[in-house]
Order: sequence, then C-alpha cells, then structure tokens
Amino acid sequence: MKDSILVYSGGMDSTTLLYEQKDRISLAINFNYGSKHNHTEFKYAYWNCEQLGIPLKVIDLRDVFSNFKSHLLMDGGDIPKGHYEDESMKKTVVPFRNGIMMAIATGICESNGQKRVLLANHFGDHAIYPDCRETFLDAFKTSVKEGTWNQTEIYAPYTKLTKRQIAQRGHKIGIDYKMTWSCYEGGTTHCGECGTCVERKEALEGNDPTQYLVP
Amino acid sequence: MKDSILVYSGGMDSTTLLYEQKDRISLAINFNYGSKHNHTEFKYAYWNCEQLGIPLKVIDLRDVFSNFKSHLLMDGGDIPKGHYEDESMKKTVVPFRNGIMMAIATGICESNGQKRVLLANHFGDHAIYPDCRETFLDAFKTSVKEGTWNQTEIYAPYTKLTKRQIAQRGHKIGIDYKMTWSCYEGGTTHCGECGTCVERKEALEGNDPTQYLVP
Repeated sequence: MKDSILVYSGGMDSTTLLYEQKDRISLAINFNYGSKHNHTEFKYAYWNCEQLGIPLKVIDLRDVFSNFKSHLLMDGGDIPKGHYEDESMKKTVVPFRNGIMMAIATGICESNGQKRVLLANHFGDHAIYPDCRETFLDAFKTSVKEGTWNQTEIYAPYTKLTKRQIAQRGHKIGIDYKMTWSCYEGGTTHCGECGTCVERKEALEGNDPTQYLVP
Repeated sequence: MKDSILVYSGGMDSTTLLYEQKDRISLAINFNYGSKHNHTEFKYAYWNCEQLGIPLKVIDLRDVFSNFKSHLLMDGGDIPKGHYEDESMKKTVVPFRNGIMMAIATGICESNGQKRVLLANHFGDHAIYPDCRETFLDAFKTSVKEGTWNQTEIYAPYTKLTKRQIAQRGHKIGIDYKMTWSCYEGGTTHCGECGTCVERKEALEGNDPTQYLVP
C-alpha cells in the first residue's frame, strides 16, 4: 500500500528512510531552498529514487528562503568547520526549515489522498536545530493531525537514533552510502571538515566509502 | 516596538488585525498561492499597507500549490455558491494552508529578529477549515515555540470571535471595509453569492459599503 510522502534530501538519513519505507512511499519531495549543497544533494536523491522507481518532485522554495539569513544559504557567510554539535554550527540553522518542509508535505499529502509524511531527523540534530527535537515534533504531529481532514500522520522514526545507528540499519539492508551526500559546501567531493562531513565520518567509521578532500 | 510579522491577505479579518496591531507590525506577508482571488486581494493589501507605512512582501508559492487540489485554485473547479459553513464549501479547502503560511512566516520572523507571527483566523472558519481551529492552533503554537531559538509566539486573537464581532472592532477604529476583498471568484466586483460573500454580508449587515453583483 502506497500511503506516504517522504521529505527527501539525498543525504544519509533520508536515503535510509527511503529504502526502509520504499513499499509505502508514493512520492519523494526534494526542496530547493537555495542552500549551497542543494544541487549536489539532488543528484543523489534523483539516483536513489530512480533505483526504486519512486517519483521525485522538486519544489522551488528559493523565493521563500531569500527572506532568510543562514550561512547554509547561497547568499550567506562561510560554512563553519568543526563538529556538528559545536556552538559555531548554529550559523547553519535555517529557522524552522523542518516546520516549513513538513507543513508543505502535509498539504501535498492530503491533496493527493495520502496519509503519512516521513521525515528523517535524528538525535544528533537536537543540539543545534530546535525544529528536530522531540518536543517540537510531538506538538507538530498533533497540529498536523488536528489541522487536516484525513488526520495526517507525521512519521519520524529516527528522532531518538544517532546517525551511526541509522547507518547501521542502512548497512543491514545493503544501502550504498557512496550514493548519498552530506557536505554543506556543495561541490563534487566531500570537504571532510564541515560539521556534516565530521558527523558523516563518525557515523560511517569502519565502513566509509566516501572520498574526502581532507580525510 | 516593532516585533511582529502579519500573514496578510487583504481580506476583512487580516485588515482588522493590521490596523489593530499597526504599531507592532514590521512586515506584512502576502502569499500568492495561485487562488482565483489572490490578484484582487493583493490590491487591497497593498493599499492598506501603504496607508500605514508598513512594508508588504509577496511570497510566490505557486510552485508549491501546483501540487494541490482545491476549487479555490486557478486550475480547480467552480467556486460553490451558498453559505460559508455549508458542506459544499469543503471544495474550497486548501489542505494545511494556514500551517504552511504560518510555518514560513515563523522562519522569516526568526531570521529577521522578530518575535511574533500574527494570524487573523476566526470562529466562522472552524466548520470547514481544520487548520483554523483552536485544537490545531494550540498544538501549532507549541511547535513554533519549541522549534525556534527565540521561542516565536503565534498570536491569533480572533480564534473565538465571529466575523461580525471582528467587523464591529474594526468599525470602532474607523476601518473602511470598502478597501478589503472577500470574494473567492476574484474579478473586480464581489459576486454576492459565494460562501465568503455571504459571510461578508452577514458580518457587515447594516453598515456594508460593498457593491455586490447579486445584492
């Protein structure tokens, strides 16, 4: 039964969710919000959806996010180097991004007769991104259930998992993480120094197929 | 002190909120989501913001809402005639529209160092639009508070008021409702027969400056 819509970036976490829930996903949605790495991520999102025969839709939110300030965006400052949970990584916060993406996915979900919106936020996001935390998600889930006629469900199964635990689940079902993208810098090779690259290394340590500019 | 962002359509309710909160509103946001009446509403939004010297920004969401099905939208079916709370008016629901608009306004609010998002939903919306109800709003308010670093507040003071009560508040502070738009059909004159026109007539009865095609 296909009853779900996935918010899909092409990164490690949402790619894992794509494969785990492939039999229920009718549509994956990729948001172009004007980040430095949107274009690179998208190639991997496209490739994985094609493997599974799942339609992928890109929604252009550049006009919306042109009103935002974040180092993650094209017109923002430099991407900070360091650990994903460092204070300096707050510069990469895009305020309420998950709220915005899930709200749009909820509307599309109900409009298309679907029942579930899937999001692959994880425990490591909690330190820096308030709209990845359980307190946010619990309230948002209720608002979505109350605010739709079909009582849409938000399914975010990795909220309490670390990125390493997600990767372990993915390896079990044979996901090739070489075909995912993490680096905030964009480009063609992972930089190996930004917060998401450091986090990716920690998650895949011992089984990492990624090429990094700084190993 | 300017600390608020208004979700502003140019209709009666949000125009009342614009005037009531004019000293705290730093920015009004109008969403073009591809409805039949977006263009007409916008003229009135523009006019009222100009009177008050409040900046107005239009955000183009047509790409997002091209994935939605609703008779309210350009590519949807005919606008139903009748009472605003009739079952037939459900055709005009745009799923989770308020959730989407408030989520975007929340991100812009935090990005711009503001504290409050203002929404002019009212009691008459509850029958047909689940994302106008108190249960939805209470949960959404919590999600916004939890999901932002600055604990953004959602301020929706008309949730328990009827449209008539809102109009009475507006008349007290001298709002000219001739310079607002309600009709779902768009065009240049209110049709007088669609749900929002019927609701407008009831709200302004005895003090209605509106010209209707069908009085």
